[in-house]
Amino acid sequence: MTDQNPCSPHCPTDADHLCMPAEARKRARHRLSIARGHLESIVKMLDEEDVYCVDVLRQIRAVQGALTGASDVVLRGHLEAHVATAAGRGDTVEMVDELMEALRYR
Amino acid sequence: MTDQNPCSPHCPTDADHLCMPAEARKRARHRLSIARGHLESIVKMLDEEDVYCVDVLRQIRAVQGALTGASDVVLRGHLEAHVATAAGRGDTVEMVDELMEALRYR
Amino acid sequence: MTDQNPCSPHCPTDADHLCMPAEARKRARHRLSIARGHLESIVKMLDEEDVYCVDVLRQIRAVQGALTGASDVVLRGHLEAHVATAAGRGDTVEMVDELMEALRYR
Amino acid sequence: MTDQNPCSPHCPTDADHLCMPAEARKRARHRLSIARGHLESIVKMLDEEDVYCVDVLRQIRAVQGALTGASDVVLRGHLEAHVATAAGRGDTVEMVDELMEALRYR
Repeated sequence: MTDQNPCSPHCPTDADHLCMPAEARKRARHRLSIARGHLESIVKMLDEEDVYCVDVLRQIRAVQGALTGASDVVLRGHLEAHVATAAGRGDTVEMVDELMEALRYR
Repeated sequence: MTDQNPCSPHCPTDADHLCMPAEARKRARHRLSIARGHLESIVKMLDEEDVYCVDVLRQIRAVQGALTGASDVVLRGHLEAHVATAAGRGDTVEMVDELMEALRYR
Repeated sequence: MTDQNPCSPHCPTDADHLCMPAEARKRARHRLSIARGHLESIVKMLDEEDVYCVDVLRQIRAVQGALTGASDVVLRGHLEAHVATAAGRGDTVEMVDELMEALRYR
Repeated sequence: MTDQNPCSPHCPTDADHLCMPAEARKRARHRLSIARGHLESIVKMLDEEDVYCVDVLRQIRAVQGALTGASDVVLRGHLEAHVATAAGRGDTVEMVDELMEALRYR
């Protein structure tokens, strides 16, 4: 179940590491672009002297939710493409250690 | 302890609502600008075909932490300027309801 | 707005510190008792050899939600009884520092 | 890579579903027992009229941390024993859907 390219079929053929599935990559990129635009608008809100604290808290919370959504897209792609195939590649412990570290305080 | 401008001394004199203290506003703006730059760099990361899922998860988590930091600046300013003075203004219940709603699922 | 007992009318007359409002105390106690019973049932689930991981994750998450609910009852009581009156007592900065520390990583 | 018992070698031979690895089960049970004792002590704290809100918030937060630790033990066992072997069993999509749902709002 192993071959020379560890991340086939998700990677350019010369990659020497696991790569993100293309669809997850595009969807995550799209969601993060929208979150960036939202964050840009909060920065502008804060140029106004009469902005109200609770409105800013709500807007920041909305961006946090959007980032969690993007993170879920990446996580799902990673679980399907890389974690579910770990036993076949023989790197289960390393993959799980790495993921648990990345999920901490999520 | 009340006067005609409910948010004095934090607001332009013609504001009719509570306003964010200027220092908290500037500090939150600065932090959110940095988070926006970081988020911009993640969007660019996702243009690369060989980006790795776990690296993206880590970067998104770092931006989440930065947003939580900015949110804490806003929350602290709000508690000091507006919640701590609520009994004096006589709007404690409204202020606390509003804040609890904004903190939900924080 | 200050008097000899800092936490009146929420405290026994001989208390020398702020005390939790009685209603919030009773409601939080009730909710935490229920969460304790739920947690007890998860411990028992884990005595069964054929328990499934995802069922345990879901049950732990439900208890976490119940604890967050209890925490919100305590927080709301604290904001109304103690933070909203801080400017009157003159201890705003201390109250807010303490609360921000307690909310960290909430 | 498949056999008649889907959860072998983690399960009693007559189980018809995936089961938690025994070591993760014992470790999670131990941690949750400690959390239950801690939660019991908070319920007792709340019998005292002069308990202080912020002390209760801190104690609840500590129990939340303990539950997250127990949850991580279960999650790690699940990833290693069941998710990493999903491609071999052929149930990747179902396993990942189920896990993503259980992690939501974690």
